[in-house]
Amino acid sequence: MHQETSFIGLITDFGERDPYVAAMKAVIAAGTRSAILDLSHAIAPFDVVEASWFLRCVVPWTAGGARSSQGGGFKSGVIVCVVDPGVGSERRIVAGWRDRLVVLAPDNGVLTFVAPELALFRSVENDALFLPQGSATFHGRDRFAPVAAALTRGIDFASLGPEIERRSLARFAYDEPSYGEPLRGTIVSIDRFGNIVTDVDASRAGRIDRREMKIGSRVVRKSASTYVEGEPLGEPFMIVGSQGTIEVSVARGSAADALGAKRLQRVEIEMRRR
Amino acid sequence: MHQETSFIGLITDFGERDPYVAAMKAVIAAGTRSAILDLSHAIAPFDVVEASWFLRCVVPWTAGGARSSQGGGFKSGVIVCVVDPGVGSERRIVAGWRDRLVVLAPDNGVLTFVAPELALFRSVENDALFLPQGSATFHGRDRFAPVAAALTRGIDFASLGPEIERRSLARFAYDEPSYGEPLRGTIVSIDRFGNIVTDVDASRAGRIDRREMKIGSRVVRKSASTYVEGEPLGEPFMIVGSQGTIEVSVARGSAADALGAKRLQRVEIEMRRR
Amino acid sequence: MHQETSFIGLITDFGERDPYVAAMKAVIAAGTRSAILDLSHAIAPFDVVEASWFLRCVVPWTAGGARSSQGGGFKSGVIVCVVDPGVGSERRIVAGWRDRLVVLAPDNGVLTFVAPELALFRSVENDALFLPQGSATFHGRDRFAPVAAALTRGIDFASLGPEIERRSLARFAYDEPSYGEPLRGTIVSIDRFGNIVTDVDASRAGRIDRREMKIGSRVVRKSASTYVEGEPLGEPFMIVGSQGTIEVSVARGSAADALGAKRLQRVEIEMRRR
Repeated sequence: MHQETSFIGLITDFGERDPYVAAMKAVIAAGTRSAILDLSHAIAPFDVVEASWFLRCVVPWTAGGARSSQGGGFKSGVIVCVVDPGVGSERRIVAGWRDRLVVLAPDNGVLTFVAPELALFRSVENDALFLPQGSATFHGRDRFAPVAAALTRGIDFASLGPEIERRSLARFAYDEPSYGEPLRGTIVSIDRFGNIVTDVDASRAGRIDRREMKIGSRVVRKSASTYVEGEPLGEPFMIVGSQGTIEVSVARGSAADALGAKRLQRVEIEMRRR
Repeated sequence: MHQETSFIGLITDFGERDPYVAAMKAVIAAGTRSAILDLSHAIAPFDVVEASWFLRCVVPWTAGGARSSQGGGFKSGVIVCVVDPGVGSERRIVAGWRDRLVVLAPDNGVLTFVAPELALFRSVENDALFLPQGSATFHGRDRFAPVAAALTRGIDFASLGPEIERRSLARFAYDEPSYGEPLRGTIVSIDRFGNIVTDVDASRAGRIDRREMKIGSRVVRKSASTYVEGEPLGEPFMIVGSQGTIEVSVARGSAADALGAKRLQRVEIEMRRR
Repeated sequence: MHQETSFIGLITDFGERDPYVAAMKAVIAAGTRSAILDLSHAIAPFDVVEASWFLRCVVPWTAGGARSSQGGGFKSGVIVCVVDPGVGSERRIVAGWRDRLVVLAPDNGVLTFVAPELALFRSVENDALFLPQGSATFHGRDRFAPVAAALTRGIDFASLGPEIERRSLARFAYDEPSYGEPLRGTIVSIDRFGNIVTDVDASRAGRIDRREMKIGSRVVRKSASTYVEGEPLGEPFMIVGSQGTIEVSVARGSAADALGAKRLQRVEIEMRRR
């Protein structure tokens, strides 16, 4: 990596009102001239699941990501995710690699959704990279920020610390979607607009207009290919969302409220009877 | 445009908690090394009027804007506005030009307040500029972001798509202010501090201390030239706001609450009787 | 300073929804190509105390700051703090210097916590640096932004205006902590997580596990060296926070709510009896 052509993206649960994000940025700016991108500081406090899905939605589109190879942009990047209820404990800091992208995160399950997109993993233990006399309560500033800056200054990925196995990473309880009949998946996010986002890959579901989705005791039978097409329906409808997974929306309202859907709830998607 | 000397400013209604802004930034960063400026992601969901006034307050101050020609800064810029309830429908994506600034937006009325500040317009239809296999639900990431990046890499404005007429642009219902007696205008914004912002150009109103403003059944008779001067008044007062239009404020309180004022409400400003 | 190697950090109470931050950024981007860092726009409206502590937590970690000398980053920077209820009045705009960092702020007490970290001070009066025909209501855009941009273009610190004495700066009522027995200090912040942050330097308190803190009629007797260690306690505990001062936390809850603690409340920290 080289600082002039790298970015550092930040994902935290710090909010904007407290000085924690600002202190991280001050340390990064003292250590590199890479562009700093705010990805989110509004993750719910300690919400490792939310942060994990967030990573899953961003990583594939970054430098080196197959889905966005326009060329001409930053040659490399670091994404730093600090949602870290276990700060100061023995939980590791880990780094995952993918083409020209490094993801830095606490080893607390936050990589659960995104680990399959990453290849090499290291435990970040080289304390020469940390700020001296760091605190026990703010690794974002004292460890994550200077390590990210050092990566963009060109230090070797291997110098972060020992290689570790993907299977050694912490995970939260989560079953991968299954593609038998019926399809089974999980609600992974409820977004600002009330859309219900599942992890079920639409490309493996065939035509969604021939299917229906069970969420608890409720059944969604309609579908649409755009929000505007769904508007006249007056009820929740399935749609292929921006991650290529099946979502449920309602026009000018919250599908999650309409259906009482909760994150991490399981769903079934089966062929419609007629 | 050239990426080293261009900025890309973002205005959305996506909020910060969901991964939508982050995905847009990932795509932009993969396509250009231009500076990314967050202008706002807190526009109320689908609020085209709010976004339109926001654009009106920002565009005149950018690169190429007559009001801020300090020199020495970015040579050019792109402002991307994604407040887009009609995403995936037949609504166009349009681009407006002004000196060295391009504004990219859905053609849904969001340019209503700012179109007079722009000159050439094009319909963005060159799908070679879009991400391949884009979604029907997220043009911010799949179309707006890569087009903005491409502009900063130097593609010609004309290559975006066919030229269109200003008068073909969608507009929301809105009457321009009229400068007979009484002056008539519209409340275009209620800000965080409760200030009531109108579109009435103060330079055409003469001395505001000789005028009074009717908002519904209420009348504002006081005026001040600074907030501090207005403090002892103990009631709402008119003041020339930061866009050069007449606003109504109340010291340490919300003028909008005090007067029950609503956005898009009409106001009359007449000469005081005595 | 040189624009290619400088950053401009912004702290405001403008929120993100109104166009005020965006207009400041437009002016900065027209005047310099320095990196713009959002430090916070979520300071409570007019809350000079909150902004002051925020500055105190950020300044020591910036370029030139002793606590973060990694090297390789931005050579210099400007931090602009616009929390400015007196805008348009006779209150001064002041600039403080520290190594390669300039802090620009209204002279309304916002420098109270951070003035000891700065050296030279000037009153910003050179109106050739301001935008022409600026407003009386928005110095953030019309004065602070162009002055910050000019600093990164290399104008001399002395050209801002006349030198002033540190003791001439406005202050809010605040007693420095005292280090006799008992230690006495002030609650300077309640953060997003409900942590109670004091200004009492932990390094001068000796072992905190031998102490107890009085907050009003409540007493905190427990302590921990990490949040995780504090979890099993089931009650509020003292901990050395990220600024090196003594804080009070409670596991998975708000210490401030549990103890009814308020900002600017005084605390006493004494040796435990047994």
